[in-house]
Amino acid sequence: HTHTQTHTHAKTHRSSSKICERVCVFGTGDLGRSLGLRLLQAGYGVVFGSRRPHSSSSLIPHGSQVLGHAAAAQSGHLIFIAVQREHYDFLVPLANQLKGKVLVDLSNNLRKNQYPEANAEYLQSLVPGAEVVKGFNTLSAWSLQKGPSDANRQVYICGESVQAKQAVMAVATKLGFSALDRGFLSVARELEDFPLQLFPQWRLPLYIATGLSAAFFFYLLIRDIIYAYFTQGKDISFRIMVSLANKVCPIVSLIMLSLCYLPGVLASFLQLYRGTKYRRFPDWLDRWMLCRKQLGLLALGFAFLHVLYTLIIPIRYYVRFKATERTVSVIRENRTTEFDTTTAWSGDSYLSLGILGFSLYVLLGITSLPSVSNVLSWREFSFIQSKLGHLTLLLCTAHTYLYGWNKFLSSSTYKWCTPPGYMLCLVLPSVVLLLKLLLITPCVDRTITRIRQGWERRADQRNPKNSQPLIP
Amino acid sequence: HTHTQTHTHAKTHRSSSKICERVCVFGTGDLGRSLGLRLLQAGYGVVFGSRRPHSSSSLIPHGSQVLGHAAAAQSGHLIFIAVQREHYDFLVPLANQLKGKVLVDLSNNLRKNQYPEANAEYLQSLVPGAEVVKGFNTLSAWSLQKGPSDANRQVYICGESVQAKQAVMAVATKLGFSALDRGFLSVARELEDFPLQLFPQWRLPLYIATGLSAAFFFYLLIRDIIYAYFTQGKDISFRIMVSLANKVCPIVSLIMLSLCYLPGVLASFLQLYRGTKYRRFPDWLDRWMLCRKQLGLLALGFAFLHVLYTLIIPIRYYVRFKATERTVSVIRENRTTEFDTTTAWSGDSYLSLGILGFSLYVLLGITSLPSVSNVLSWREFSFIQSKLGHLTLLLCTAHTYLYGWNKFLSSSTYKWCTPPGYMLCLVLPSVVLLLKLLLITPCVDRTITRIRQGWERRADQRNPKNSQPLIP
Amino acid sequence: HTHTQTHTHAKTHRSSSKICERVCVFGTGDLGRSLGLRLLQAGYGVVFGSRRPHSSSSLIPHGSQVLGHAAAAQSGHLIFIAVQREHYDFLVPLANQLKGKVLVDLSNNLRKNQYPEANAEYLQSLVPGAEVVKGFNTLSAWSLQKGPSDANRQVYICGESVQAKQAVMAVATKLGFSALDRGFLSVARELEDFPLQLFPQWRLPLYIATGLSAAFFFYLLIRDIIYAYFTQGKDISFRIMVSLANKVCPIVSLIMLSLCYLPGVLASFLQLYRGTKYRRFPDWLDRWMLCRKQLGLLALGFAFLHVLYTLIIPIRYYVRFKATERTVSVIRENRTTEFDTTTAWSGDSYLSLGILGFSLYVLLGITSLPSVSNVLSWREFSFIQSKLGHLTLLLCTAHTYLYGWNKFLSSSTYKWCTPPGYMLCLVLPSVVLLLKLLLITPCVDRTITRIRQGWERRADQRNPKNSQPLIP
Repeated sequence: HTHTQTHTHAKTHRSSSKICERVCVFGTGDLGRSLGLRLLQAGYGVVFGSRRPHSSSSLIPHGSQVLGHAAAAQSGHLIFIAVQREHYDFLVPLANQLKGKVLVDLSNNLRKNQYPEANAEYLQSLVPGAEVVKGFNTLSAWSLQKGPSDANRQVYICGESVQAKQAVMAVATKLGFSALDRGFLSVARELEDFPLQLFPQWRLPLYIATGLSAAFFFYLLIRDIIYAYFTQGKDISFRIMVSLANKVCPIVSLIMLSLCYLPGVLASFLQLYRGTKYRRFPDWLDRWMLCRKQLGLLALGFAFLHVLYTLIIPIRYYVRFKATERTVSVIRENRTTEFDTTTAWSGDSYLSLGILGFSLYVLLGITSLPSVSNVLSWREFSFIQSKLGHLTLLLCTAHTYLYGWNKFLSSSTYKWCTPPGYMLCLVLPSVVLLLKLLLITPCVDRTITRIRQGWERRADQRNPKNSQPLIP
Repeated sequence: HTHTQTHTHAKTHRSSSKICERVCVFGTGDLGRSLGLRLLQAGYGVVFGSRRPHSSSSLIPHGSQVLGHAAAAQSGHLIFIAVQREHYDFLVPLANQLKGKVLVDLSNNLRKNQYPEANAEYLQSLVPGAEVVKGFNTLSAWSLQKGPSDANRQVYICGESVQAKQAVMAVATKLGFSALDRGFLSVARELEDFPLQLFPQWRLPLYIATGLSAAFFFYLLIRDIIYAYFTQGKDISFRIMVSLANKVCPIVSLIMLSLCYLPGVLASFLQLYRGTKYRRFPDWLDRWMLCRKQLGLLALGFAFLHVLYTLIIPIRYYVRFKATERTVSVIRENRTTEFDTTTAWSGDSYLSLGILGFSLYVLLGITSLPSVSNVLSWREFSFIQSKLGHLTLLLCTAHTYLYGWNKFLSSSTYKWCTPPGYMLCLVLPSVVLLLKLLLITPCVDRTITRIRQGWERRADQRNPKNSQPLIP
Repeated sequence: HTHTQTHTHAKTHRSSSKICERVCVFGTGDLGRSLGLRLLQAGYGVVFGSRRPHSSSSLIPHGSQVLGHAAAAQSGHLIFIAVQREHYDFLVPLANQLKGKVLVDLSNNLRKNQYPEANAEYLQSLVPGAEVVKGFNTLSAWSLQKGPSDANRQVYICGESVQAKQAVMAVATKLGFSALDRGFLSVARELEDFPLQLFPQWRLPLYIATGLSAAFFFYLLIRDIIYAYFTQGKDISFRIMVSLANKVCPIVSLIMLSLCYLPGVLASFLQLYRGTKYRRFPDWLDRWMLCRKQLGLLALGFAFLHVLYTLIIPIRYYVRFKATERTVSVIRENRTTEFDTTTAWSGDSYLSLGILGFSLYVLLGITSLPSVSNVLSWREFSFIQSKLGHLTLLLCTAHTYLYGWNKFLSSSTYKWCTPPGYMLCLVLPSVVLLLKLLLITPCVDRTITRIRQGWERRADQRNPKNSQPLIP
């Protein structure tokens, strides 16, 4: 036995010689020092390169050494460049020492398109003999010091040389990060833009939400407040703050929710019409489908506001005033009030449907959290997002229909010949639900399922054997 | 220095030769193409195998090549089979070319038990000379294209050959996934069922919740609505929508919450009775303990509904009607109303306890999120789920007792000699709390702690030295 | 082609010989058995070491073997010690067999500082010839059995020998965990304390929250309830349960929220004053900044309670009684009530600002979830936590000002010459907002931005070239 163990031991020893290798960090700023500390903890020897090695030596982490740039460059195969791009020119005279070395460009810019080319490409052009790898730039000095335990473990790298990328990935793994190769150095700009991006996928849904909110706000402002001012001379502008907001929110929420389910329905009809799944969707449909999650979450946000605005209704001064006034008028005019069971039924159903719809809404939102959706199987996720999603839409639409109740046919509803907001917002969800109803009729559903399994109506030249059922 | 670096460089170069190796993908459907693209990005050479190489060449990702199956099979050691199971027979004539190759079966079925044996086992039986590895089937074409950044990084593989699995795991790691070896090919069916499963752990809790809801719904329907109709001839059926729902929800929630904490208490008493922790719990108790999280989350869902149903009370037509009626009757009958401090105290305490209980409920729910529970230490998690959990149960039970308040002894409460719902639902939580109280008395607690550290009342044959305190 | 493939195959084969190696587990308790099972599944040969091999053999997982400790120790290079610390002395006589072996100490204690030195250090002192690695102790028997799919994948190890740690990390990776080297064996105590820690980062914020709550509770108790008792002889103690709680919660919430943003503002002013970012902040400021997240989440908790306490207002007996009384008095005294548009405006604005503030609060809370903050880029995270955070503070402060509205100047507000609670709680947020306003004026903002990019007012000896813009 002893022999085998010694052998294994020796092998481990040999394979770990790479671990004790020395790496070099140019730059003794926050990022450079944090990176150096992390490398030391992971068992690397660290040599800092500095223009003034003597004055920097007090700052660098204990256990590392600081040398001039040229000397430091000779002490390791990997060199992390933790210096700002505008100072990269100091590397030009070092071209000889940097020949064949792997330079890891960690830099970030302050804004997109700050420079004509990516920092890493600029670095490569300055030191053509070195192998530049872009990477680690999405990490902060903070997350480097703390270790990746509760920050993002994923780092992206790119570069021309496979060997250089391999070496950098090995270091990343040793530091506890999970590196992903994104391709050649031309991807560097993308990686550099990554920490600067501001919700690119949320932009379109946010524009839609803002546009819808503004449109309905002004529509309802005219219909409710300006109409009352013109026809009755009453100033009810205070209603903007709560009543109007509580009309705009549910309207926008319902429209956004149906916009979230409309593209899926359209895509199914397109596949039905084409008789195949082997043709790309038009670009606008692809883009729309990509922002369904964001549309849905914004719809949930508006629904949340609607719930809060609804729940505070009885606290409002106006509502309490009206309640007192009503009771007083009943007494003074000596009227008797009759309890109307139909009103009670419709009102309670309206509230109950809203509550159930909102609860499902919240459930959909919770399953959209990355950590929750990650533990769901494909079938579970599609069950929740498709089946429960359409049920949510159905409940919320029914809730809105019940809100209208018997006002649909009364002419007093149509002030200045315009329909109220809730009627306008019912159009889209009704269409989506009708189309979905068509899709789940047995005969249509059968065709769709066959198409999604690779069947084609006109199987002329493509080979259906090579098609694997796609997990959507 | 230079010598060492060159050596390291050379070593890196050598070890990365595997990266540029060529892999083969059979099938040019969505999944095959997405996988090919991902492999290309990760630096692999990709050869597609197709029955009609010429007509497929326009579809495949740029940089890959497409050959006939036989030719393609020769170009790589690893072959991904992205073809549907029903077409696997085309592989039989290729047996010679596939000898010794690693075949990765990516396939999924449309439903469980669609075929007598697992797809991977069927594949192995068709090509006995190849080494079949099941894996990657939980990934979608979509998550392959996007990379694993915000989807699940974990993939499972299984197979007979350790070497073959190693090779597949290396590819998985390179693609940014984290592969986990689940064992031999007999596990393949389990892996194939994985994307098809629909909340297996939620099934029992959902049945319990549905059963309880239905039972209490009919019980309360009879007690409240049918009773009123029979004895007073009043139609108060509109109360089903809100009042009845708002009775069923808290009742089911409280029972589910106590069902969530009952098995832990039972397990402790079983350990106390047996005097050892070294005996398995009965199967039913094990199963029950495994679904505590789901029971608790469903209880939270019902509590959430209860809160919403409670908060909309003052908006209801019925409630507003009654309030007006009451005021009117005070005036007309010229009564004076006296403010009752005791009622105010009990009512406000009832509401306050409910609010605190619900807040803790929500806190428990938040710490159940995978990403939150992952950053908690064992002691933190057990503190929240056990200490705060029982506190939540205590608060909610007290809330319900205060709801009953002085109605427990009044005979008018017991219509048709049946107790109201809230009394029925108090039984179980009271029992759980009493048992828990017994368990935390110092002398019982001491014994339990000793048992959990490995002490046995009759330490006859087992060796207590080999027992490590188990993190529960 | 064939040649290359055979070569690759051979290489894979060779490199996987390590995988089939045998590892040893001392201890057949829950943890030992679970670990053994996991190791078997991952393809290792497992040998259990037990004092009574014959009686243990029925318990151990199928496929493993159980030997005496001495014999078991010879069968593998890696030995997992799944035995409680108090029994470690049985290892002393095995010193010869354990020489050069890697001993993985998995043990945990029941409480911090239970023993003078760390378990792993004690183990090393008992068996000086072995290479002790601390690790895996944060895992439970449960998570070992289930695999790391939905538990925490991160494990920490430490030890003196780099080779030994490498070997342990290789096993961890094979089991599906992600091991992070935390340094030398002196870190072992830290790792052993890890599963025992109870919210260390939450402690200070919780003390602050408790202190503030208690202080404001007693202050308001005196001002509201005791004052009423003394001056009017009225017992309104029932208001403690809801009214008082609903004053304490928002006050504490607003103060905590401003405490969450104050340190950032102070740090900026310190950098401005010093003219450099290259000097450490004082320790108290560092500690304060580290618990901002916890301060913010506690503030959200109090805000949540405030919302619930506010929404149940109209259900309260006291409120319904008062409403009836008011209406009755209007009738009996034959008064007319006049609707006041200004009151409606201020009241509705007050509610609307509160709703918007709370919604942003919730949004901030959601983005604090680890899984959500991990998918945000640096700029997105800073946009939400800084821009939206200060907007939340602004909305909540404005909400509180509107609550005061026209009561600020009325002398009846100042009972016993003390200001009401909401006025006291407005001081801190107003200061924070004013300071922040100063910081975002163009000229100050420009200087701060330059300092954060590495510029120094007195650039005497430090080299600005080595500074990389820090992602904060």
